[in-house]
Amino acid sequence: MKVYLAGPDVFLPDARTIGAAKKDICARFGLVGLYPLDGEDDAPDPGAATLSMQIFGSCVARMEDADAVIAHLTPFRGPSADPGTVFELGFMAARGRLCTGYTNRRGAYSGRVDHGDRTDGVVRDRDRLLVEDFGLADGLMIVHALDMFGLALLTPEVEPDDVFRDLTLFTKCVEWLAARRP
Amino acid sequence: MKVYLAGPDVFLPDARTIGAAKKDICARFGLVGLYPLDGEDDAPDPGAATLSMQIFGSCVARMEDADAVIAHLTPFRGPSADPGTVFELGFMAARGRLCTGYTNRRGAYSGRVDHGDRTDGVVRDRDRLLVEDFGLADGLMIVHALDMFGLALLTPEVEPDDVFRDLTLFTKCVEWLAARRP
Repeated sequence: MKVYLAGPDVFLPDARTIGAAKKDICARFGLVGLYPLDGEDDAPDPGAATLSMQIFGSCVARMEDADAVIAHLTPFRGPSADPGTVFELGFMAARGRLCTGYTNRRGAYSGRVDHGDRTDGVVRDRDRLLVEDFGLADGLMIVHALDMFGLALLTPEVEPDDVFRDLTLFTKCVEWLAARRP
Repeated sequence: MKVYLAGPDVFLPDARTIGAAKKDICARFGLVGLYPLDGEDDAPDPGAATLSMQIFGSCVARMEDADAVIAHLTPFRGPSADPGTVFELGFMAARGRLCTGYTNRRGAYSGRVDHGDRTDGVVRDRDRLLVEDFGLADGLMIVHALDMFGLALLTPEVEPDDVFRDLTLFTKCVEWLAARRP
């Protein structure tokens, strides 16, 4: 079983090291991890006009090749997960691949948004935009996609010190996928 | 042609009015707009344990029913587009539907992230996380998904006064789709 390793891990200064650690954990459970940065070793795609298009193409190719995804959904530059990762989760869900994901933050999405007020029964932010207030760890599309297309979002009992690097919940996703290996 | 109208419009205080305006524009060009909030008129789904799952299910059903998507990608609670909308864009791209989208903000993604420094040739934020610096209006997965699966992201020449409600670029997406009607 090949597993696409989606997440903002690729933006860490030690992105390659984290990727290698994730692939090692996959291998220990008999799975093959496909990490976006592996694309840096691909031959240049003559159809890609720019570096960013080359990266996009190599991520899509790895998603097409994978049977499952593990999405790292720790909030990133805002109250929600990294949008690139969320795009990939949507892509894999629509392709019917097994979807798993984890966040290393506790607490509900609504708790991470600055509230303006709670009038007419709903929570709104300072711009008067409604805040999803279902007690979910992130937006409902993200959380329920995992409910519907794989394993419910994993969240920590206690937040790890290093929320971007802790692999405890990542490993639980791998275990769950390994038990479903054809 | 049925078009799924994705975007944070549903969080506006006048979400129903905006939805009606978008559907009117679609109708003027011979298209049928499917707006997420229309699901509030659906019969309750006995399989949905919670309101948020009911909403999720009705959004997925509308995406399945649509031939195309218009994603409203104006930055939302951070430097990037609304993650729920981005999930839906990924979903529709993977299903091979025609993908279009617009943002009413000008400028590159990297300009909206607080920079820590630019050392070893790359831009990093204050947490030392790499900032995508390709001059694109949002993350590369979002921007290039539109390049690859439909119409390149539309951005304004001049930012409208009301970035969440202006429908100029929305209308251009509708026009483009209408010209591709089977």
